[in-house]
Amino acid sequence: MIEAGANHSRLSERSATGIAGLDEMLRGGLLRGSAVLVEGAPGTGKSTLGMQFIHHGATVAGEPGLILTFEMFPRHYYRDAANFGWDFPALEAANKLRVVMSSPEVTRADLQSVSGRLEAQAHQIGARRVLVDSLSHFERLTNDPVELRQMVFEFINGLKRMGLTAILTRENPALLGETANLEEDLAFVVDGYIMLRYVEIASAVRRALLILKLRGSDHANDIRQYEITSRGIDVRARFEGQQGIMSGSPVSTAAEAFIQAFGRKR
Amino acid sequence: MIEAGANHSRLSERSATGIAGLDEMLRGGLLRGSAVLVEGAPGTGKSTLGMQFIHHGATVAGEPGLILTFEMFPRHYYRDAANFGWDFPALEAANKLRVVMSSPEVTRADLQSVSGRLEAQAHQIGARRVLVDSLSHFERLTNDPVELRQMVFEFINGLKRMGLTAILTRENPALLGETANLEEDLAFVVDGYIMLRYVEIASAVRRALLILKLRGSDHANDIRQYEITSRGIDVRARFEGQQGIMSGSPVSTAAEAFIQAFGRKR
Amino acid sequence: MIEAGANHSRLSERSATGIAGLDEMLRGGLLRGSAVLVEGAPGTGKSTLGMQFIHHGATVAGEPGLILTFEMFPRHYYRDAANFGWDFPALEAANKLRVVMSSPEVTRADLQSVSGRLEAQAHQIGARRVLVDSLSHFERLTNDPVELRQMVFEFINGLKRMGLTAILTRENPALLGETANLEEDLAFVVDGYIMLRYVEIASAVRRALLILKLRGSDHANDIRQYEITSRGIDVRARFEGQQGIMSGSPVSTAAEAFIQAFGRKR
Amino acid sequence: MIEAGANHSRLSERSATGIAGLDEMLRGGLLRGSAVLVEGAPGTGKSTLGMQFIHHGATVAGEPGLILTFEMFPRHYYRDAANFGWDFPALEAANKLRVVMSSPEVTRADLQSVSGRLEAQAHQIGARRVLVDSLSHFERLTNDPVELRQMVFEFINGLKRMGLTAILTRENPALLGETANLEEDLAFVVDGYIMLRYVEIASAVRRALLILKLRGSDHANDIRQYEITSRGIDVRARFEGQQGIMSGSPVSTAAEAFIQAFGRKR
Amino acid sequence: MIEAGANHSRLSERSATGIAGLDEMLRGGLLRGSAVLVEGAPGTGKSTLGMQFIHHGATVAGEPGLILTFEMFPRHYYRDAANFGWDFPALEAANKLRVVMSSPEVTRADLQSVSGRLEAQAHQIGARRVLVDSLSHFERLTNDPVELRQMVFEFINGLKRMGLTAILTRENPALLGETANLEEDLAFVVDGYIMLRYVEIASAVRRALLILKLRGSDHANDIRQYEITSRGIDVRARFEGQQGIMSGSPVSTAAEAFIQAFGRKR
Amino acid sequence: MIEAGANHSRLSERSATGIAGLDEMLRGGLLRGSAVLVEGAPGTGKSTLGMQFIHHGATVAGEPGLILTFEMFPRHYYRDAANFGWDFPALEAANKLRVVMSSPEVTRADLQSVSGRLEAQAHQIGARRVLVDSLSHFERLTNDPVELRQMVFEFINGLKRMGLTAILTRENPALLGETANLEEDLAFVVDGYIMLRYVEIASAVRRALLILKLRGSDHANDIRQYEITSRGIDVRARFEGQQGIMSGSPVSTAAEAFIQAFGRKR
Repeated sequence: MIEAGANHSRLSERSATGIAGLDEMLRGGLLRGSAVLVEGAPGTGKSTLGMQFIHHGATVAGEPGLILTFEMFPRHYYRDAANFGWDFPALEAANKLRVVMSSPEVTRADLQSVSGRLEAQAHQIGARRVLVDSLSHFERLTNDPVELRQMVFEFINGLKRMGLTAILTRENPALLGETANLEEDLAFVVDGYIMLRYVEIASAVRRALLILKLRGSDHANDIRQYEITSRGIDVRARFEGQQGIMSGSPVSTAAEAFIQAFGRKR
Repeated sequence: MIEAGANHSRLSERSATGIAGLDEMLRGGLLRGSAVLVEGAPGTGKSTLGMQFIHHGATVAGEPGLILTFEMFPRHYYRDAANFGWDFPALEAANKLRVVMSSPEVTRADLQSVSGRLEAQAHQIGARRVLVDSLSHFERLTNDPVELRQMVFEFINGLKRMGLTAILTRENPALLGETANLEEDLAFVVDGYIMLRYVEIASAVRRALLILKLRGSDHANDIRQYEITSRGIDVRARFEGQQGIMSGSPVSTAAEAFIQAFGRKR
Repeated sequence: MIEAGANHSRLSERSATGIAGLDEMLRGGLLRGSAVLVEGAPGTGKSTLGMQFIHHGATVAGEPGLILTFEMFPRHYYRDAANFGWDFPALEAANKLRVVMSSPEVTRADLQSVSGRLEAQAHQIGARRVLVDSLSHFERLTNDPVELRQMVFEFINGLKRMGLTAILTRENPALLGETANLEEDLAFVVDGYIMLRYVEIASAVRRALLILKLRGSDHANDIRQYEITSRGIDVRARFEGQQGIMSGSPVSTAAEAFIQAFGRKR
Repeated sequence: MIEAGANHSRLSERSATGIAGLDEMLRGGLLRGSAVLVEGAPGTGKSTLGMQFIHHGATVAGEPGLILTFEMFPRHYYRDAANFGWDFPALEAANKLRVVMSSPEVTRADLQSVSGRLEAQAHQIGARRVLVDSLSHFERLTNDPVELRQMVFEFINGLKRMGLTAILTRENPALLGETANLEEDLAFVVDGYIMLRYVEIASAVRRALLILKLRGSDHANDIRQYEITSRGIDVRARFEGQQGIMSGSPVSTAAEAFIQAFGRKR
Repeated sequence: MIEAGANHSRLSERSATGIAGLDEMLRGGLLRGSAVLVEGAPGTGKSTLGMQFIHHGATVAGEPGLILTFEMFPRHYYRDAANFGWDFPALEAANKLRVVMSSPEVTRADLQSVSGRLEAQAHQIGARRVLVDSLSHFERLTNDPVELRQMVFEFINGLKRMGLTAILTRENPALLGETANLEEDLAFVVDGYIMLRYVEIASAVRRALLILKLRGSDHANDIRQYEITSRGIDVRARFEGQQGIMSGSPVSTAAEAFIQAFGRKR
Repeated sequence: MIEAGANHSRLSERSATGIAGLDEMLRGGLLRGSAVLVEGAPGTGKSTLGMQFIHHGATVAGEPGLILTFEMFPRHYYRDAANFGWDFPALEAANKLRVVMSSPEVTRADLQSVSGRLEAQAHQIGARRVLVDSLSHFERLTNDPVELRQMVFEFINGLKRMGLTAILTRENPALLGETANLEEDLAFVVDGYIMLRYVEIASAVRRALLILKLRGSDHANDIRQYEITSRGIDVRARFEGQQGIMSGSPVSTAAEAFIQAFGRKR
């Protein structure tokens, strides 16, 4: 939301996601070394967005990447990536990608060793990017929000020390609209916050993307439509003529309704 | 939501449900080997949808099927299926169907043996499909959402190892609209998510179907009407002129209201 | 909601309630041997509907009936029935009715003996119908929703084994609109579900009836007005020109508002 | 809601409240021997309504009355009654009224002795009416809703055995609109239910009265305005042109709004 | 809400607050010896209203006053009062005011001694008014709502025995609109209830005052605007053309909107 | 909200924030020695506002400042400040700024030593301003709201004894609209309360600023838009034609909608 012309971060400081519309909203990409939360309901494409960021880094931007997963097997990522035409096994063979799976039973104490493995892999391939899929797994390690916050804070600081630019996914259990309360406050710990939401418009469910926070950088503040295509996430135009989009159940503006009923004024 | 032309999954990879409108929305059927959640309030026809999927597999698609139930007796399924003209005892006799009933008192520890029985039956008839009716039963085995998720995750992986395409029903206690919070996050574990909902329109209660997620495949994103007829589920046109359908209490769009009051513009 | 012509249940399989409008909505009455939940707030007439079903069975349909109560004394039913012109003592004398009162302190363990008494009475008069008033009493026997569901499931199966068609009332603590969550999920256990609701329209409180579920049968899906008259429940026309009836606080449709203000279009 | 002509209760069976508009809504008054709940927020006039019922009984209807209080001292009732011109000390002197105060620390075990004192007083003056102010006090004796319900049920039955017609007040903590859940379900135990509510209309707070339930009798179902005047409760006309009155924040009907803006159609 | 002409309380029985608009709404002021709750969110001016009542008593009405505080030091009141031009130290010197500070750690057991100190001070200066700032402090002494109510009830009765007219402030944690539930029910214990609220209108936040209850007296029932000026609280006209003011987010009435858009009808 | 002309606080008593629009809303700046809460969701710019206040004091107003942080390292502030062109290391070198970091594990007992360090640093540079970033950290030290309130109260009093004017940030977990309940009541303890909010308007997310409370001073009461520019916070005009801004999902006023559809009346 920093004004045009005020954008003093050089593009060379940016890690482009490879999603054209999103990179434009981000004014070029993620700030190198930042950690950005991508949150959404099931099926909104959080992991896809993250994989696309990793794939773009490994194939176009010359930034090898890591994927840290706690539940899904590497082959799941291979298969899902293949759906979008991304050849993850080839990237692994070329030392441009590592998929690191941690046991879903990992405890808080184990986190150190997870970080160790991550660092070793990062070193091997000279990784510059990481996808943590998902941060929700951390939430299952403790019921104490203070401990959770500190744990995530330390983990993210670890990623930064490794020189990684990070996308961290987070599952949002609300299908439409907001949860009443984000008690873990993880959004305060990260450098950026991208929200993916379902929105019901005209008897169909659309997807909406919003950048709510981007520390140290300007960003677009409009709510954009996006699609999951055969080539990955495609961010498109903003919504028009709707009120309350972030509630998931927007209504047409009255002006829009008049126009639909009576035609546009000339 | 993957764009037209982008649909690179071959139809031969699909297990059609036999519900024409739904198969069209799914771009041919469920992906083979996927596990899809069908969620809805009492009376929305979750089990009927699942039985139709099993019946179509056994009679048309050459894919024998299993039904796993925790509460209802096999004869209940025979009777309910008969209401739709589906002869389940005949299919059992022809080794194209098995209804496997697990005790409602099954514990988490017993799940392994349930899986064993399921696998044995699957092997006997060469099953390719399964209906798990309902996943809600798993929710009663533990109050720990992390344990529940892992349990369901493992169970589903077991089904996949058996080569089964699965429909898993889940009871939604909210009659109209959404529950505030899906704390078990089961929707993150499955490959697809189909929602069945009641919707009040024009002083009557209609039924709405929505595909919210379908991993690795394009799907329709509109909210469709459906009916439970004497031949099973019948998916019809999308709703028109309504806002907030997923809330269960939509309102007419203002444009629709003008049109109803003043007639359509020419 | 099964389509016209699809109604393959013979009328001889139906137990008419004797409430004309409701029987029409039910396509002739309750399916013999089914158990139907009637839910509503205080004063909506749940017990009246149930007594009318029992009275009609005993006097017109040749189906003697039982009333099982946990709190109200038989004389309360006699008095309330008398208000509608139904002579319950005479029916008892004629062996066409039994009112069975169980202590409100009945425990889960006692339920078996309650069932025993019920069965004995059913046998004595050849009962075909039963009113359980109210199922809410079961909810007070346990705080464990799993145990509750199983208990009710078994109890209902017991009624079916006795060959009884059952109406089970359930108290809904919400005066207007829905409770947020039906955690006991009893609606999943029964064969049918009839909702009675208060609705505020035009500065008065009306009553609304809706059939939400009817296993194995077609049924009307509109929301009907009803009154409690001196002859019992009287189900009337559907509501017109209202949106959000089931919320208890509907609003006029915009079309209706235009019409009221400007007159109907010709 | 029983239809006109259907009102088979004789007026001689009624205990008039002395509030003309309310008696009309009740079709003559409370049924003798019934127990009616009067619920409302602070300042809605529950106690005033109850005192008026007692005063009318003692001075006009020849039915002496009791007031049972758990918190306020008798002198508080004398003073409040005097505000309306009701001379309670004189009625006590004439053996037409007794104000019985129970300690606020009364336990469940003490309830029996409270009933004993009540019965003794009732006998002394030949009481036919009672005001219990307030039933909310019972709610403080137990946190177990089942125990509470049974306790209130027994207490009310005790009042009926004494031949008393009862008004029981109940405090509603919600200032505007409904509480989400009436978990104690006391409304199921009583014979009638009168709701007093605050309603914001045209930048002022009005009072609304509604009879929601009246066992064994017809009653008006409209939502009426009332005022607390120097002569007590005065029930007036129904509200007009408002939707959602019971929510406490009604909106003008659209028709009403058109009329206010453009004038009434001729 | 008692009708005009019905106002049988003599003005000599009133303690004017010195806030002209409020005294008019109160029909002259608080009834002597009554205890009135003033509730509002932070910054709504509860303490200011109370201090103005005390200042008016001490300087104009010949009624010396006490301020009982549990958290703020006397010098805080001096400073805040000075902002409005009220010289509290001079009033203390003239024996027309006492600010009594109780430790924030006061326990329930200590309350007796607090009352003792209060009574001693009241005796010294012949106090007739008291400001208790704030009653919220009592809520921190116990988590048991029954105990709280009794404690406050006794405390208020103590104030009445001392012959004091009391304003008791209470903090409302909701910034806009109502809290869902006033579980402590303190509003039932006091004689009057004045609500201070924030209201968003036309992209600004206004303040609203409403008298909800005033035992034994008529009062205005409209919702008035007020400002905090350099001379204290200033109560002004009622709001116009707004619906749902007490929710904190009112909307213009439709009639108002038509008028704004098309001009007033002539 | 004190009226024009009533502003008796001299400007010399004000600490300007350096944010022109905010200083105008504050009638010149914060009152010296006051403690003001700045609350907002992640990304609303709470810390930026606080750093700007500190920077303006150190560079323009001749008031050196402190920053107390519990989680972020001083270098984080240097980097974030540099984004706005503020050279914090130079200010530290010139003894006009100190960034004091307390361990995130600080306990309640440690608070005294934190205050000691703060006081020592304040003395060294003659600090007149302090930014506490964030007060939310105190909320993590106790679950007892009474203890929290007292702890914050004492801490703030300590700051005042040091002669500091304070901005205290607080994280608001609700992204849009209000949290239901501010149970800690911290807003009652501070002298001023500034709210930062996200607001969805015309398919984009804007930022809104509101001063809700400012003890001892007049302030603007309108809801203003603001941006985070490359030079810090920029407070702009109020919102126009919106209702319910503080809910986060305002709707256009009906008047606005008519104007948009039909043009402004002439």
